[in-house]
Amino acid sequence: MDKKTLTVSPANRKPSIMVSVQWLMLCLQNIFQARGLAPEQAKQVADVLVQADMRGIYSHGSSRITIYSDRLKRGLVNPNPKIVVSQTAPGTLLVDGDNGMGAVVGHHTVQALLPRVAETGIAAATVQRSNHFGIAAVYAEALVNEGCFALVCSNAPPTMAAYGTNEAVFGTNPIALGMPMGNQKPLVTDMATSVVARGKIIRAVHEGTEIPKDWALNAHGEPTTNPTDALNGVILPFAGPKGSAIALFVDLLAGVLSGANYAKQTPDLYRNLSDPSDIGHFMLAIDISRFQSWDSFYSRINDCLGMITEGTPLSDTNEIKLPGQIEMENKMKALSDGIALPTDVIQALEQACQDTGVSFTAPHTSSE
Amino acid sequence: MDKKTLTVSPANRKPSIMVSVQWLMLCLQNIFQARGLAPEQAKQVADVLVQADMRGIYSHGSSRITIYSDRLKRGLVNPNPKIVVSQTAPGTLLVDGDNGMGAVVGHHTVQALLPRVAETGIAAATVQRSNHFGIAAVYAEALVNEGCFALVCSNAPPTMAAYGTNEAVFGTNPIALGMPMGNQKPLVTDMATSVVARGKIIRAVHEGTEIPKDWALNAHGEPTTNPTDALNGVILPFAGPKGSAIALFVDLLAGVLSGANYAKQTPDLYRNLSDPSDIGHFMLAIDISRFQSWDSFYSRINDCLGMITEGTPLSDTNEIKLPGQIEMENKMKALSDGIALPTDVIQALEQACQDTGVSFTAPHTSSE
Repeated sequence: MDKKTLTVSPANRKPSIMVSVQWLMLCLQNIFQARGLAPEQAKQVADVLVQADMRGIYSHGSSRITIYSDRLKRGLVNPNPKIVVSQTAPGTLLVDGDNGMGAVVGHHTVQALLPRVAETGIAAATVQRSNHFGIAAVYAEALVNEGCFALVCSNAPPTMAAYGTNEAVFGTNPIALGMPMGNQKPLVTDMATSVVARGKIIRAVHEGTEIPKDWALNAHGEPTTNPTDALNGVILPFAGPKGSAIALFVDLLAGVLSGANYAKQTPDLYRNLSDPSDIGHFMLAIDISRFQSWDSFYSRINDCLGMITEGTPLSDTNEIKLPGQIEMENKMKALSDGIALPTDVIQALEQACQDTGVSFTAPHTSSE
Repeated sequence: MDKKTLTVSPANRKPSIMVSVQWLMLCLQNIFQARGLAPEQAKQVADVLVQADMRGIYSHGSSRITIYSDRLKRGLVNPNPKIVVSQTAPGTLLVDGDNGMGAVVGHHTVQALLPRVAETGIAAATVQRSNHFGIAAVYAEALVNEGCFALVCSNAPPTMAAYGTNEAVFGTNPIALGMPMGNQKPLVTDMATSVVARGKIIRAVHEGTEIPKDWALNAHGEPTTNPTDALNGVILPFAGPKGSAIALFVDLLAGVLSGANYAKQTPDLYRNLSDPSDIGHFMLAIDISRFQSWDSFYSRINDCLGMITEGTPLSDTNEIKLPGQIEMENKMKALSDGIALPTDVIQALEQACQDTGVSFTAPHTSSE
């Protein structure tokens, strides 16, 4: 994988600059419009990146601007896709993304699912001919906000070993799961099927520390505590055969079933600059109100979650967090205080503006 | 948990006796009929237990005969349930198991889902007022054999900590995933959301060995390598926050959404001999043929699986196995050679026959 993917971890980035969500949105949106996207679609892509930065998932945020802009420039991504949604049964959709930006295709799929769920109580969509769609949590949250349980997953270029092998077969194939919780924020969790994000291994390289030996294999297929050797090898799936099986089923739904590329077929986003990605996604939504009244459901889910949070934390310093809670707290903080964006991401944004003829306005905020 | 749950691990059981699948089926079926189940339903329950034994999942096999029979005798399980299936939308079913045997309720739900999937392409059922339904793989396989992707999960009495706490909040909340593969055996994987099955910790007690320190916490919430201390504490979810989040979503779908007991509410199968379990299940099926032609799908899935199996195994002695492959091989071997059933399970079967007035015929096979 190109070293550009190594510039995504927040911890190895000093100094950072506080920018407002509005500034970042506008900057990204202008770049995507300059690359040929319609205003509404440019906004969708910008929003998905900003949503990741707000949550502290910098690896999927505006650090992606260089590769997103570059692939648009090279004609590897279609700025104005004619997305085709085929309804093959009352509850099933086949989406052909026409090689559009992943965020555009992803949001289009969410909107197409909603009337299906309203009619049938449950609906699923497979998506082919799409591209990197950012964090899956964004689409899960959009479905949750319409009163649905949501499952959203995507395949990705191979960087992770299947259990029992030392070769990269799967991507880190993320899964987002979401449930409405009533007055509170939605419960949305988003996880890679690998032991850790690649970014944590990169951070260990920068900090000169060792990594636990169950994170990755070196190029010879041996467990390693050396993070550089790990980056030259493969990441391991979480929980051994279990994570590997889940990653496989993500690829079966998002890749094999959708008609998209799957497993080893999927070209590297950074290294392969001649082929479209043809990434596949899978989205599933279930209308909660077909099973429980809202009063009853909210009462029950909050009671259930209380059984977790009212427990005794393992250490005095730790509060018990629900899945996705840290990211949601980060988002709330970003909305009020802004985002601490690494300076090299700011530089990448400035460069992308320059490349696309967009005037770059420096963020009017103090450095951290 | 009652020590009866400790009698489930195969490795601490010598000697065992080879019995035929037919003998075991008949013996179990006779017991359940004597406990008031109709012949067809007695056969369903027997089959689910035998399916587990055949796969080598002895913890969910006929070792359960004593507790299953006992709860029927005590009137804690309804031998003749009037299972009510409510269709609340074209693709959604609410099932009330009327406190029937889990296997009976589970198979009833599978049959109710099939016409829904045929119409809408996708369907889901929540199940309340059910009981322990054995291995989830059985129901997933039944749906896969009808051409569906299947997801089947169940909640269970609390034995596992939520991430960050030392209290048992969740059961080991298993998930089975399945896909048709054409001429080959179906691809079905069935996993607990805990690091390991409780049976492996019990085995370590019997063998006098230590356990890895990431399997369980002792009663003080500290990681322990002592298996006895682990059994007095809680099992940990696999992959920390990830497994914990997945276990939570299983309980949200199978428990909270279904109307069944959830999380800490669920009474212990062995210790609580006064209340029905009110276990909840969740089943989801998607008609593969609404997305791909069978020729195309089988070609693609087998190509994808080949990318795993044609890799280099990590050690010369290891063959790369697909998810569920070991269990499927065990099943094939059991069908031809019989099942090596631990002698104390044979004794439990004999006792259950005696308790129910069923004549016990000793298996006519050689001991191992």
